Amino acid sequence: MNPPTQTPTEPLAARIQQVQEATRGVTARYPRSYILDCIKSDRFPEEMWKALGEFGLLGLSVPEACGGSGGGVVEIVALGEALGLAGIPTLFLVVTGLGRVPIIRHGTAEQIAQFVTPTCDGSMKLCFAITEPDAGTNSFNMSTLATRSEDGWILNGQKVFISGARDADYMLVVARTQKASEVKYRTEGISLFVVDMKTPGITLRLLNVQVETAERQYQVFFDDVRLPEAALIGEAGKGAKLMFEGLNAERLLAAAAALGIGEYALAKAVDYAKQRKPFGKPIGSYQAVQHRLALAKAELEAARLMTYHAAERFDAGEDAGTQANMAKLLASRAALDAVEAAIQTHGGYAFDRDYDIITLWPMARLIAIAPVNNEMLLNYIGEHVLGLPKSY
Amino acid sequence: MNPPTQTPTEPLAARIQQVQEATRGVTARYPRSYILDCIKSDRFPEEMWKALGEFGLLGLSVPEACGGSGGGVVEIVALGEALGLAGIPTLFLVVTGLGRVPIIRHGTAEQIAQFVTPTCDGSMKLCFAITEPDAGTNSFNMSTLATRSEDGWILNGQKVFISGARDADYMLVVARTQKASEVKYRTEGISLFVVDMKTPGITLRLLNVQVETAERQYQVFFDDVRLPEAALIGEAGKGAKLMFEGLNAERLLAAAAALGIGEYALAKAVDYAKQRKPFGKPIGSYQAVQHRLALAKAELEAARLMTYHAAERFDAGEDAGTQANMAKLLASRAALDAVEAAIQTHGGYAFDRDYDIITLWPMARLIAIAPVNNEMLLNYIGEHVLGLPKSY
Amino acid sequence: MNPPTQTPTEPLAARIQQVQEATRGVTARYPRSYILDCIKSDRFPEEMWKALGEFGLLGLSVPEACGGSGGGVVEIVALGEALGLAGIPTLFLVVTGLGRVPIIRHGTAEQIAQFVTPTCDGSMKLCFAITEPDAGTNSFNMSTLATRSEDGWILNGQKVFISGARDADYMLVVARTQKASEVKYRTEGISLFVVDMKTPGITLRLLNVQVETAERQYQVFFDDVRLPEAALIGEAGKGAKLMFEGLNAERLLAAAAALGIGEYALAKAVDYAKQRKPFGKPIGSYQAVQHRLALAKAELEAARLMTYHAAERFDAGEDAGTQANMAKLLASRAALDAVEAAIQTHGGYAFDRDYDIITLWPMARLIAIAPVNNEMLLNYIGEHVLGLPKSY
Amino acid sequence: MNPPTQTPTEPLAARIQQVQEATRGVTARYPRSYILDCIKSDRFPEEMWKALGEFGLLGLSVPEACGGSGGGVVEIVALGEALGLAGIPTLFLVVTGLGRVPIIRHGTAEQIAQFVTPTCDGSMKLCFAITEPDAGTNSFNMSTLATRSEDGWILNGQKVFISGARDADYMLVVARTQKASEVKYRTEGISLFVVDMKTPGITLRLLNVQVETAERQYQVFFDDVRLPEAALIGEAGKGAKLMFEGLNAERLLAAAAALGIGEYALAKAVDYAKQRKPFGKPIGSYQAVQHRLALAKAELEAARLMTYHAAERFDAGEDAGTQANMAKLLASRAALDAVEAAIQTHGGYAFDRDYDIITLWPMARLIAIAPVNNEMLLNYIGEHVLGLPKSY
Repeated sequence: MNPPTQTPTEPLAARIQQVQEATRGVTARYPRSYILDCIKSDRFPEEMWKALGEFGLLGLSVPEACGGSGGGVVEIVALGEALGLAGIPTLFLVVTGLGRVPIIRHGTAEQIAQFVTPTCDGSMKLCFAITEPDAGTNSFNMSTLATRSEDGWILNGQKVFISGARDADYMLVVARTQKASEVKYRTEGISLFVVDMKTPGITLRLLNVQVETAERQYQVFFDDVRLPEAALIGEAGKGAKLMFEGLNAERLLAAAAALGIGEYALAKAVDYAKQRKPFGKPIGSYQAVQHRLALAKAELEAARLMTYHAAERFDAGEDAGTQANMAKLLASRAALDAVEAAIQTHGGYAFDRDYDIITLWPMARLIAIAPVNNEMLLNYIGEHVLGLPKSY
Repeated sequence: MNPPTQTPTEPLAARIQQVQEATRGVTARYPRSYILDCIKSDRFPEEMWKALGEFGLLGLSVPEACGGSGGGVVEIVALGEALGLAGIPTLFLVVTGLGRVPIIRHGTAEQIAQFVTPTCDGSMKLCFAITEPDAGTNSFNMSTLATRSEDGWILNGQKVFISGARDADYMLVVARTQKASEVKYRTEGISLFVVDMKTPGITLRLLNVQVETAERQYQVFFDDVRLPEAALIGEAGKGAKLMFEGLNAERLLAAAAALGIGEYALAKAVDYAKQRKPFGKPIGSYQAVQHRLALAKAELEAARLMTYHAAERFDAGEDAGTQANMAKLLASRAALDAVEAAIQTHGGYAFDRDYDIITLWPMARLIAIAPVNNEMLLNYIGEHVLGLPKSY
Repeated sequence: MNPPTQTPTEPLAARIQQVQEATRGVTARYPRSYILDCIKSDRFPEEMWKALGEFGLLGLSVPEACGGSGGGVVEIVALGEALGLAGIPTLFLVVTGLGRVPIIRHGTAEQIAQFVTPTCDGSMKLCFAITEPDAGTNSFNMSTLATRSEDGWILNGQKVFISGARDADYMLVVARTQKASEVKYRTEGISLFVVDMKTPGITLRLLNVQVETAERQYQVFFDDVRLPEAALIGEAGKGAKLMFEGLNAERLLAAAAALGIGEYALAKAVDYAKQRKPFGKPIGSYQAVQHRLALAKAELEAARLMTYHAAERFDAGEDAGTQANMAKLLASRAALDAVEAAIQTHGGYAFDRDYDIITLWPMARLIAIAPVNNEMLLNYIGEHVLGLPKSY
Repeated sequence: MNPPTQTPTEPLAARIQQVQEATRGVTARYPRSYILDCIKSDRFPEEMWKALGEFGLLGLSVPEACGGSGGGVVEIVALGEALGLAGIPTLFLVVTGLGRVPIIRHGTAEQIAQFVTPTCDGSMKLCFAITEPDAGTNSFNMSTLATRSEDGWILNGQKVFISGARDADYMLVVARTQKASEVKYRTEGISLFVVDMKTPGITLRLLNVQVETAERQYQVFFDDVRLPEAALIGEAGKGAKLMFEGLNAERLLAAAAALGIGEYALAKAVDYAKQRKPFGKPIGSYQAVQHRLALAKAELEAARLMTYHAAERFDAGEDAGTQANMAKLLASRAALDAVEAAIQTHGGYAFDRDYDIITLWPMARLIAIAPVNNEMLLNYIGEHVLGLPKSY
């Protein structure tokens, strides 16, 4: 394993603030209206992505030696939250952030140079593929299989709910190199590959998912896809641990997106609640409206503390699984409470898409389910934190 | 006031069952896929509507003497629920059902013949307009004004969230005939008019609302719209009581739609929960999944009892405001719980619109807000049932 | 099976009203303060019980031919609700109501004369024993065993949470007459006995339970308790069905108690919310207070409809298990919401036992757990109503 | 104002751990059974309190120069949490911790020596009096009045819900020195006094509150109580700011108690859920049980982060009102969720006081109401964090 992130010298709050101020430099130029236009015309927000690269923001969490801007998961989480706060949560950031973690930690210098460095200026995009139709949340049950060839690997199988597959240059794929039936422990025989999306044998099917992000979701089919030896990250069959490192980062980035979108919704609701006066007084002075918003605010702040707490521990090289799982669980709940409160506050107008309230809901709701559903997080806490027996 | 509905002789359960069986004759031919096609091509489900008319179902709640099929609100609520159960809740039924109530109860024979009778075979459609942009739930604060002309009335103002305005032939409009500033009690000076949608001076603006029903929502502008004397239902300035009769019927029809859609979602979730087995056992055997569905089921059943209980009292000529408000409150909450449970059960697939799960949410969510938001219902219960002081 | 209850000729609302008016004749004389005194001095509310008998109320649900007042479960549920409404829910009514059901339906004329008729004037009291320490909610897992003797049965085992064991004259005991390991289906080999509490071999242990009712809870030990042949109700080994009939009645009586106590708490909260004005306006005008009370009210009303709906079906001889389970589930939740709202409304004063608010909580909370916990009811609905696989 | 707490040099986690380990030295000797005995015999847990003093724990948050053990609110919060974790939350710690804050920050050296230093070894106890029967949460509305005398002040009025009044040596009293009707802003004219409980004119009335702590609650009457000049802390009429500093500390100590009691309940529930097997498998393997416990755990952890985050800011001299209010709100909700989950997990046994589960509820429930109710905290967040108009 490569050396860990350098211990940060600045206090947490300052580190977050720096990133978020820099991000506002980008989001001021590419506000939510820009993203909504991209969504409408189904095109990737290329200009914004490039600008994030130019500001050095896409290089966050990548060591400077690898061409990045330094910092750890804390910084990229701060970026994710800041994008959410501006109303433009991007799934690409989630998958890029998570996908780079195992490559930086366990890849060779060449792999880092090829797959990570070019992501820092936005010139290259990485997506991530783990979920399979039949396995669902039971990742160990995956059946996508990479078998040895004379000069590398041959990949067969399929993945689903792959965000941004069309726009990505490379895809980090979790696959079995030994079938589940051939290993003693289900965590064995799992490997990570970086796959060039232009390789023959890959086909995409667009899913009819509408979550108001620029990235669309795809089902991806691998049909005798030939991978070079250098596509393998770390050791063959030992990828489960790498995968979980990446997944913990993903949960934190998902939490960050939730926090941002929750606060964004809250801000819109507060504005409206101050102005709307059907009975003479602003509806924000009614406790049915105000308390719901206030509770969501408190929940968001607590989930925020948990998210950065987890990110700090993760960057310190600890197993931050418990904290990351709690962060995603709590942030997704808080965000949904905030968006639901914003909907109820806006009344009928919430359903007019031109008010851009209802359009926040699918993403907020999705984070209770993806990248992992909250029930699985409760299972994790139940078993691994409380020590209760397995429930499923 | 015209004589009340004839006292029904059959027990409630049998009356409901008859209607729902008849409805299945129509929905078998025009299932949810038909409606989804109509929505996609933005056209009114004309064939289904006609079929409902042919089966005599659109004539429910209209006395046979007026060309209807007899029965009361109980029957039309049963129809509304049955349409929801088949996955095709229709807002037109809600507004038709509510709009006819004041005409039947307080209109002249000519008005009934002109505005109600032709709705019974589906050859004529009625929509309903009460909400205004600035008044919101405070209907008494409306500013749309009908002033006397030499031969009738001149209508000016605007209404918003008018379902099906484009497809309707007539619109029941609640308007002031005296300004709020000129009456002693805010309930005075309100009148009901039936307006021919082809009258000059009416313009429509399509709202960007996406709730997965065939009926779209519109903002409607009245610019010196000339109405004949016969457009007025009941007595000028005394329309508030008539309006509330209609609104109570509307709440019950909204409750019915909620019940139907909730059960529809539950049925889909149960099917999926029996088949989906990522860890070997059906996910329906996990209590996190099963109990959420079971609780929603119990809530739906209780809300159903309240809905028909209210409808029976309404038909008996009682002021069923308390029961109707509770029915709408509880049914909308139960339906949303059911749909939310169905979403969580389906995991990521819930967000694929081709699975037709996420598409149930907007309507279920809307019913917590429209035709009246649940906070106003709690205010009603707080003040008028519990006797607490006004809170807004 | 004995002939069913005679079909009632009066409408439901009138039947409920009659019972509840009669009950007020008793509760006016024996109000909550009377019961609180009984609790303080740990004595059975003998005078009130006698008065209920004199008014014919204890004879409700017992056919007139058996010395009762006629009516069915509807009537005794109405009595239970009325006692709750007066702040004096009594567990003895629950166990008497349930215990008599299998005797009336399946007992011999002699058994009815001996065990049921004297309960109608209050001269004899019946308690009920099913739960065992190790079996908990899994009643089939009980190990209390009655074995054949030359002239009857010998009973050994223990039961727990037996309300009123000290004050009862007879106890209806559910016991195995074949061990669970000796039967093919776990429902087999279960029998019902009526046991004279004065029989040698019965000992009681008072439990340290404080739920603010006059009846205390006991653990009961049976040590070679000799029962006559006539103690057996129905056929040996075929008692499971009888037991469930009794349990469904019990659930409805528990629901009734919950409804009553919920409304009682609500009434106290409303009174206080109208008078308390720390900031000048009554706190009942704040939506945080008012809406919570209003929602509880709506939930109580819906649960009430479900409870009487279930009771009517039960009396009609139908298997009302689904409705009875839903009624208990919903009523217990609604009651707890009402009591919790009353606590929050009273602020710190809620914790002063002299205000008699906190004293309502244990009973309301208990009904979510006893006589059967709500999780088991959700299991029932999940499996038997929705058709999902078993979850436990 | 006296100089602030010295900036701590050790990281937060280590500071908390040190305190909590030291506390376990005391709680191992004086476990929950000891406190339950004290409660039963209605006596103050003198031995435990002394031991806390001997271990230097009562001196936490008091500067060493004042005879304390140093550290800030962080440390005393850690103590409070540790006591809760051991099942012995003590209200005296809450009121001592809060009461000392204004004296240390704004008192003279003599006042500190007299009123604070002797609390550090437990030889002197301090209670706190702010709430009045008519003012409730509206503290500014208090009417207890201190008027100038020739050599000090004369105090008249009454306070309610005063924990530990009988056992305290001194009481920190918030009183008006100008009537509310005589000041321009309601925050003016409020002063803080330390009152010797042996002063003539003070009478106590024991309240019938049962929250399972050693400290009882009292109503306290002041009838021409003569106070020396030196009883006044800070400047006359300028006490509102001091009061809020103390109240923020109190909220954090209340949060700490909630966190501790929540974890204590959770631990008992987990133990039971692993062993109880009515259907063969431990009930902890059912998601209805496990997920409820797991969610409460996640909420407790998030509330814990908020609590210490607030304490750190408080110690740094910042206005930590927002964080302190959120901490108390979230911790009280999480604790109640944990205790409720523990009750439901234990089933009927939860109601047997010998299982010591139901006995945890009153304290957990109380913290949602005292020292300030959660609705007021939501009001604070609504107005002061979100900027919404006042709702009450």
